[in-house]
Amino acid sequence: MRKQSVIDMVNEHHRPPSLLLGFGNVGKELVLLDDFWNMTEVLGILSSSGGVKTNRKERVEAIREAAKTSAKLSDLPFFQKGLSLSDFIDELSGGVAFITIPPSYYSGEPNISLVLNFLKNGISIITADKTPFALAYSKVIEASRSSKAFIGYRATVAAGTPFTDLAKGLRGRSITSIKSVLNATTNFLLSKVEEGKSWEESLELARKEKLLEPDPRIDVEGIDSAAKLTIISNTLGKGISLWDVRRTPLFSINEEMVRRALKEGKRYKYIASYSFDGGNPTVSPQLIQRGNPLYDVRGNYNGILFELEGSEHIYLEGPAGPAWRTARVMITDLIEMLYSPR
Amino acid sequence: MRKQSVIDMVNEHHRPPSLLLGFGNVGKELVLLDDFWNMTEVLGILSSSGGVKTNRKERVEAIREAAKTSAKLSDLPFFQKGLSLSDFIDELSGGVAFITIPPSYYSGEPNISLVLNFLKNGISIITADKTPFALAYSKVIEASRSSKAFIGYRATVAAGTPFTDLAKGLRGRSITSIKSVLNATTNFLLSKVEEGKSWEESLELARKEKLLEPDPRIDVEGIDSAAKLTIISNTLGKGISLWDVRRTPLFSINEEMVRRALKEGKRYKYIASYSFDGGNPTVSPQLIQRGNPLYDVRGNYNGILFELEGSEHIYLEGPAGPAWRTARVMITDLIEMLYSPR
Repeated sequence: MRKQSVIDMVNEHHRPPSLLLGFGNVGKELVLLDDFWNMTEVLGILSSSGGVKTNRKERVEAIREAAKTSAKLSDLPFFQKGLSLSDFIDELSGGVAFITIPPSYYSGEPNISLVLNFLKNGISIITADKTPFALAYSKVIEASRSSKAFIGYRATVAAGTPFTDLAKGLRGRSITSIKSVLNATTNFLLSKVEEGKSWEESLELARKEKLLEPDPRIDVEGIDSAAKLTIISNTLGKGISLWDVRRTPLFSINEEMVRRALKEGKRYKYIASYSFDGGNPTVSPQLIQRGNPLYDVRGNYNGILFELEGSEHIYLEGPAGPAWRTARVMITDLIEMLYSPR
Repeated sequence: MRKQSVIDMVNEHHRPPSLLLGFGNVGKELVLLDDFWNMTEVLGILSSSGGVKTNRKERVEAIREAAKTSAKLSDLPFFQKGLSLSDFIDELSGGVAFITIPPSYYSGEPNISLVLNFLKNGISIITADKTPFALAYSKVIEASRSSKAFIGYRATVAAGTPFTDLAKGLRGRSITSIKSVLNATTNFLLSKVEEGKSWEESLELARKEKLLEPDPRIDVEGIDSAAKLTIISNTLGKGISLWDVRRTPLFSINEEMVRRALKEGKRYKYIASYSFDGGNPTVSPQLIQRGNPLYDVRGNYNGILFELEGSEHIYLEGPAGPAWRTARVMITDLIEMLYSPR
């Protein structure tokens, strides 16, 4: 069904030129998708030190083989050191950049400038990198509106489950609060502590499972959750920035508190929440009662609860990632870009 | 928060001319919303026999007073018998029609022609009427793409919860099946039978609570659920039409079966489902196990479960209606129309 529907939707469109930035987990999964090559005219792939041009069929095959391994882009025989954006920017006009570079939450750069520059040049973006949306949401939107370039950022929040679509569909509604579980790594750490492990042992296990960010503060001090909450809030129409979110580290609670809660029929969750009646956006460990749908959000799942007027609620849950799913979500963005009726 | 965000989003836009079709429950709630008058230049309101022009302030106040009662549009002193679309169509150019007329599932008319005619004239539509989307989805989309007119149809499915946004955010993904509870009236009937009532007594109660469609087959023979399933499937990229859905009436099960299921820790739900591995879309009473999130979807709530590759799932639940919420969802469509970056 997947193939057929995608092709049905876009078959009357030309294939826009495209460029991939980043050749990490998500970038590699993207080049393994036929739709990426079929739906766009891929010009090349860039990493931090250079890149490759993908103008020959045998190169495409070599890239896809490399993507199945831990190879770097620079390991490819046709890698050109120093190849950069400026070598593609003219040809990329009217096309789309797929951005899978690491976040840069502290300075925001070069991530923000990169995106604004694409948009100013009329180049659409489809990104898995949260940085520009978490730090400069309204600037990005404005740049997109001026140049009519498309922005796809479904992959930045709970990639795998359309949290941003839900938020978009609630604009203008009376939402009283958001309460959410937006980080799978802290789910993992909490469940290990519930099973009797210490924080340190749990961290070690997470590192072995490759669940931790290179900088673990991004997970355990709530930066990742805060970035996602920021993007959801902005999509809903509430303008905040990442550093407006008050964060309490996961480790502010001890192991005994986690295990005692479980015995009492509750669970600690690392909750990103925002109460719109004057409260501040926060990320902190919170006790969740059994019966609250967030109680059961575990493993690689994320969940979000919107409270509405009249004690009603809207609840969405689903898997976040892994990388192959994040790549597919970027294809969903591409379908919207090509298919969108306007 | 609601007010502020709506105004923030659209304050740089002109107010497009608008026309309201229908003055039933939803139409009345719409005229009670300030956003409707503030965000568009309302030209008039039409019912089946005529209409009113809203070009004077005192008329607007009289209309809003009438909307709080059971008055018909024709009860207003300035009602013009025979006033029709043709009296507005020129002035409405570049504007938007709000459609709140009753469905017409059997012939599809005049509902489908009405919408296609608006779109061909470059007039956007925001509709709570499912008919054109359930019977002629691809025609409507094509007409919108040709003329670049906007189509807003969030209010057609589970108005109050953005089911269509979720489906849009899953385009191109490997969804293996949809399973959903999409009709609140049958929720009500099933819960009354669980409490010991007969089907007939439950129907009588539903009629008293004004939960039944004028033609009850629309609810209890699954036409309403099938229409919603059709719209969700089409939004996801799977082209079916309302009459492709195989429907089994709610009353094909007897009261004893409903009550025995409950004793065994299961519940009958009136399920709209579609399995994409060659199955047909269906609406039928199905046994749902405790632990399945659809088990707890009751009252005015709707719920939808998407099954993904690898035994994973995405689940969304939330309230459907009532009419005042349906009207607000039409404002969400209007925000998208005015705010959409493209």
